[in-house]
Amino acid sequence: MAQKPSIPKGTRDFSPAEVAKRNYIFSIIKSNFEKFGYQPIETPTFENSETLMGKYGEEGDRLIFKILNSGDYLAKTNETFLTEKNSLKLTSQISEKALRYDLTVPFARYVVQHQNEIEFPFKRYQIQPVWRADRPQKGRFREFYQCDADVVGSTSLWQEVELVQLYDSVFSTLGLEGVTIKINNRKILSGIAEVIGASDKLIDFTVALDKLDKIGEDGVKKEMLEKGISEAALEKVQPLFNFTGTISEKIEKLSALLSSSAEGMKGVEELQFICDNIMALGLDKSELDLDVTLARGLNYYTGAIFEVSAPKGVAMGSIGGGGRYDDLTGIFGLKNMSGVGISFGLDRIYLVLEELNLFPQTVTSTSKALFLNFGHEEALYSMKAIAQLRKEGIKVEMYPDNAKIGKQFQHADKRGIPFAVIVGGDEIANNQYALKDLASGEQKKVSLDELKELLK
Amino acid sequence: MAQKPSIPKGTRDFSPAEVAKRNYIFSIIKSNFEKFGYQPIETPTFENSETLMGKYGEEGDRLIFKILNSGDYLAKTNETFLTEKNSLKLTSQISEKALRYDLTVPFARYVVQHQNEIEFPFKRYQIQPVWRADRPQKGRFREFYQCDADVVGSTSLWQEVELVQLYDSVFSTLGLEGVTIKINNRKILSGIAEVIGASDKLIDFTVALDKLDKIGEDGVKKEMLEKGISEAALEKVQPLFNFTGTISEKIEKLSALLSSSAEGMKGVEELQFICDNIMALGLDKSELDLDVTLARGLNYYTGAIFEVSAPKGVAMGSIGGGGRYDDLTGIFGLKNMSGVGISFGLDRIYLVLEELNLFPQTVTSTSKALFLNFGHEEALYSMKAIAQLRKEGIKVEMYPDNAKIGKQFQHADKRGIPFAVIVGGDEIANNQYALKDLASGEQKKVSLDELKELLK
Repeated sequence: MAQKPSIPKGTRDFSPAEVAKRNYIFSIIKSNFEKFGYQPIETPTFENSETLMGKYGEEGDRLIFKILNSGDYLAKTNETFLTEKNSLKLTSQISEKALRYDLTVPFARYVVQHQNEIEFPFKRYQIQPVWRADRPQKGRFREFYQCDADVVGSTSLWQEVELVQLYDSVFSTLGLEGVTIKINNRKILSGIAEVIGASDKLIDFTVALDKLDKIGEDGVKKEMLEKGISEAALEKVQPLFNFTGTISEKIEKLSALLSSSAEGMKGVEELQFICDNIMALGLDKSELDLDVTLARGLNYYTGAIFEVSAPKGVAMGSIGGGGRYDDLTGIFGLKNMSGVGISFGLDRIYLVLEELNLFPQTVTSTSKALFLNFGHEEALYSMKAIAQLRKEGIKVEMYPDNAKIGKQFQHADKRGIPFAVIVGGDEIANNQYALKDLASGEQKKVSLDELKELLK
Repeated sequence: MAQKPSIPKGTRDFSPAEVAKRNYIFSIIKSNFEKFGYQPIETPTFENSETLMGKYGEEGDRLIFKILNSGDYLAKTNETFLTEKNSLKLTSQISEKALRYDLTVPFARYVVQHQNEIEFPFKRYQIQPVWRADRPQKGRFREFYQCDADVVGSTSLWQEVELVQLYDSVFSTLGLEGVTIKINNRKILSGIAEVIGASDKLIDFTVALDKLDKIGEDGVKKEMLEKGISEAALEKVQPLFNFTGTISEKIEKLSALLSSSAEGMKGVEELQFICDNIMALGLDKSELDLDVTLARGLNYYTGAIFEVSAPKGVAMGSIGGGGRYDDLTGIFGLKNMSGVGISFGLDRIYLVLEELNLFPQTVTSTSKALFLNFGHEEALYSMKAIAQLRKEGIKVEMYPDNAKIGKQFQHADKRGIPFAVIVGGDEIANNQYALKDLASGEQKKVSLDELKELLK
């Protein structure tokens, strides 16, 4: 019986045109990763469940795709779980493997498992899909790629400097102007918490402060007071409500504000090092900004925090993010392994390039020319030329059947193939090829060498 | 609690050196696919179970990895299946998705689903991993890549000609000499079955004939008789027991042998077309051979059958295979869509290249030079040069910490980085860099421009 074919929700098929564009982005990210000394690793699509479970919080555990054990998977299960229909408890009995949820936990697992083969500091990149059983939405998929570069085994702040340069290099190569690389530091946030005398209010504080643009100073303060932050605290951090100026000016303000917090001052010092050196080295097309409201993965990062915004005018969330985490591999028993890394959001970068029309015309896997087919003798003559052209790396093909000429031209047109090569008795007799530019309609007879030159 | 980290059996982590080598093979396969006019598609890692189940036989169904439904997956299950612990029947109630088992069925699904967007004939390639819950063995994995090129929507035998050229082009580019591309035709096999008067004995016949090299003519005949093939039948196909000579001679023998079978003669004609044109066009480093015992996927292929053997002397099974199937998309309701395709076995090709030492030295993602770190001033001076070098596409990096010089040299050595760049007060004063060749120990002072030239 014929089935109406479809794919699971939240997943995608990619057409040749889409694959070509995605590969264009991947290849630029990859070549930049390698220029910066990062080396590729790959980990399996599925990990043992215990490697993943409990690493992403309760919500994360729910969103991990689990793989059903093979064979008679019910044989050794607990009867009670079955009769009670206890899905939650049965899962670990019938599923031992799960699909990768991100690239960070598998990387930590890789580092610990291969620690004796790895020379530290270890700069690795990884570009692979991950899976999340999230509710699919516009722009949110259940299968999507992550592109991560991380270095473990060094606390040097030069890594942070380089990662900002790496962001700039990738986005500049992609032709994106006016990307903002926002930077903050977890220790600054802790310092603020110390200064307002309420470490437990830190998240409320940053969430509210982040709304400054939208609801104004009064609105933000109102929200903060509602969350239990005192008037006195708000007075202390008043400078944050008018946090403008150059990076140097901002650092100066923070320095004054956090002078009573040792941790806060450590954060200021780190920020200063990173920003000073980036400014000394210069950025290409991106801008650096210090954003004290930046708090992604607050429980995770311990030092620098990065986030990249698309150019102004493009309605898109962050197109990248990352930061430093002082204990990456502790979960797998290897202590004191500081790491810092960044991630690129492929799908969003794709949408930004599409919106700004930044994909080069040359990004296509389509053949350069279609040889028309007028019968066996002509086809064999064509195939000899085609073999020569392909040896030069030129993408060409022949229409496989001796079909009506109109149909063959239409095929070239629909495929977006720019040239047709027409071979009849005349051409064969003169050892020539008629090359037709399908856009202009212009046609001329050329030799094989000329054909090579023209199609290159 | 620290867990001892590991990965599921049958899966692999790939180190930077391995990824570089695998990518070398992928990129050669890819660029050849595109030169031949094949265009990339990608399909989701998991498909709806009904797309995959029942397409690979009962054994295949067992080997498909199933994904457990999310949430309270037991809620609507049949109580009887649970209390009976009926794994087989419960599966379809708790799992709606499954991991891709090969690339052919997803491709057929893609063609039918997107038939209105596709311009036929459609030449597509696909390079993605597949998963099989097979018992892991040496060289057999539960996660492995397939690299497939197929064309659907044309019965032209030029496609078969091109696919043989494509095999030759890929293996020649990889530097493999003496690969044998074996060809056969399903219609020849049917013709033989007709001639021996026993279509149901065809598999027994080809399996036995395939052992000619090992057990000799008498051994093969003994086995055939045991399988119920008659003495008279064996006499009729006696030429197959001495099936040597050039391809033309073999085709002549087949033509004589199968003259009474219309289907067999159709197969001879097809073989003749393919072989004649390949010989007229020539192959680079591979050899073409006609092998009448070749019967891969007998129930599947309807015309040409291909298989590629590694160069003689390398103990390795087939490194590629394929053929024509007249009804690729019928399972999904689109009739009369003939397809022909080939596949490359990445893991085996990798092992062959490794054994023959054919990976170029340049296949590595390792940096060209490590700048040593002697403190902040030197580091900043180095980072300025590094930014310039990276703009030229040169892979360089700086040791992140001001560690002991011996440790830094050791890092370059262990990483296989060929050059070190040493920057001290002297170099900074003279706007120079000391470049040390770590293999020869030779060291010289150079300008930034010279450094670019030397590291390019």
